[in-house]
Amino acid sequence: MSFVEEKLQALGLDLPPPPKAAGLYRPALLVGNHCWVSGQLPFRNGKLLYTGKLGSNLSIEQGKESARLCILNALAAAQSALGNLDRIERVIRLAAFVACPENFQDHAKVADGASELLTQIFGAHGQPTRISVGASSLPLNSPVEIEILFSIRG
Amino acid sequence: MSFVEEKLQALGLDLPPPPKAAGLYRPALLVGNHCWVSGQLPFRNGKLLYTGKLGSNLSIEQGKESARLCILNALAAAQSALGNLDRIERVIRLAAFVACPENFQDHAKVADGASELLTQIFGAHGQPTRISVGASSLPLNSPVEIEILFSIRG
Amino acid sequence: MSFVEEKLQALGLDLPPPPKAAGLYRPALLVGNHCWVSGQLPFRNGKLLYTGKLGSNLSIEQGKESARLCILNALAAAQSALGNLDRIERVIRLAAFVACPENFQDHAKVADGASELLTQIFGAHGQPTRISVGASSLPLNSPVEIEILFSIRG
Repeated sequence: MSFVEEKLQALGLDLPPPPKAAGLYRPALLVGNHCWVSGQLPFRNGKLLYTGKLGSNLSIEQGKESARLCILNALAAAQSALGNLDRIERVIRLAAFVACPENFQDHAKVADGASELLTQIFGAHGQPTRISVGASSLPLNSPVEIEILFSIRG
Repeated sequence: MSFVEEKLQALGLDLPPPPKAAGLYRPALLVGNHCWVSGQLPFRNGKLLYTGKLGSNLSIEQGKESARLCILNALAAAQSALGNLDRIERVIRLAAFVACPENFQDHAKVADGASELLTQIFGAHGQPTRISVGASSLPLNSPVEIEILFSIRG
Repeated sequence: MSFVEEKLQALGLDLPPPPKAAGLYRPALLVGNHCWVSGQLPFRNGKLLYTGKLGSNLSIEQGKESARLCILNALAAAQSALGNLDRIERVIRLAAFVACPENFQDHAKVADGASELLTQIFGAHGQPTRISVGASSLPLNSPVEIEILFSIRG
């Protein structure tokens, strides 16, 4: 069991099965010493945990919960590309897209749900650069979509 | 003629002239072994093929057609940076921004228009990691904007 | 004083203090020969210069002014990661997210506010690849968010 999976277990979390692509793309790709991960939705057992919009039918806490689940799916995707998550050196970049109406302002709080879990797992190396952006809508009425870029040990 | 252009010809497609930047930026840049391509709009002969929003005045099929045209423009931009498209090793990342109202859910179907063409050209190496995101609007009322990152042979 | 800071001074501009992260992330990271900078908002002295939406309560000129301020903050973030801004080789990629209603079309004009300043500072190396995308809303009701990727001298 990888160190990352041990950390997840200690947090009471399980690595889900690798996400299936929702179209003609790859969930993750290892290219040189970078692992690019496709935008992840908050799927659990094949269904979205929540649907809708932050600041409309969903609370910040539900948004954070969705963001954490996106990270678990991103790690599962990375594992299928890397074989072992302990090859991850650090999180370089995290893009958090939040489905929301025009008056929503708390994108960063939602994205912190992702950053918090990454920091619990990877420590300081789990703090990426980040963008947080509001989307008019997201695939399948998902409230959150998160894209991650990892650097991989040489 | 490059292998990529032969593939396009066999598909009944032509590489358009390289897109002009719509502002102070470069359509594509080769940096190390990566070719970064600016967000492309569905221009044909200097005009947008469609304007408006998916899930409003445009059908999924029109969105896919727009996405394919963005890819042709991205390849033309890449060619101007690379000299020869056969230097492309694989598509690493594709970001599909889809202009749509809040109830649109089929972003991935639109983005598949791009992925399908890339796969027809590059085979398995044409399947990138991907994000699909809804935008409140896009430049010039474009329905789709697509950004691509290629890895280049060493 | 770095060459970049001299250029800023000649333009009548000052490098602000490095932006504080608005959550659990890093304002900038140096990884190999890339400097990734988090999405920057138009903060000046700890307050957003403008709030709201382009094409609604804000003019193109106010959007460009916001974009320029994002660039100053991005440079300050990069300086804290690099020590010296003269290590920057070129701007590879700029992502401009513009908060706007569905009928806004001038994203590229707003993004040009950023590109113009980068070109004034870095010359041709300040012209990046670029995406310009409309957001339903941005963090803290910011009108603009800009993400930048720099290549760093070897």
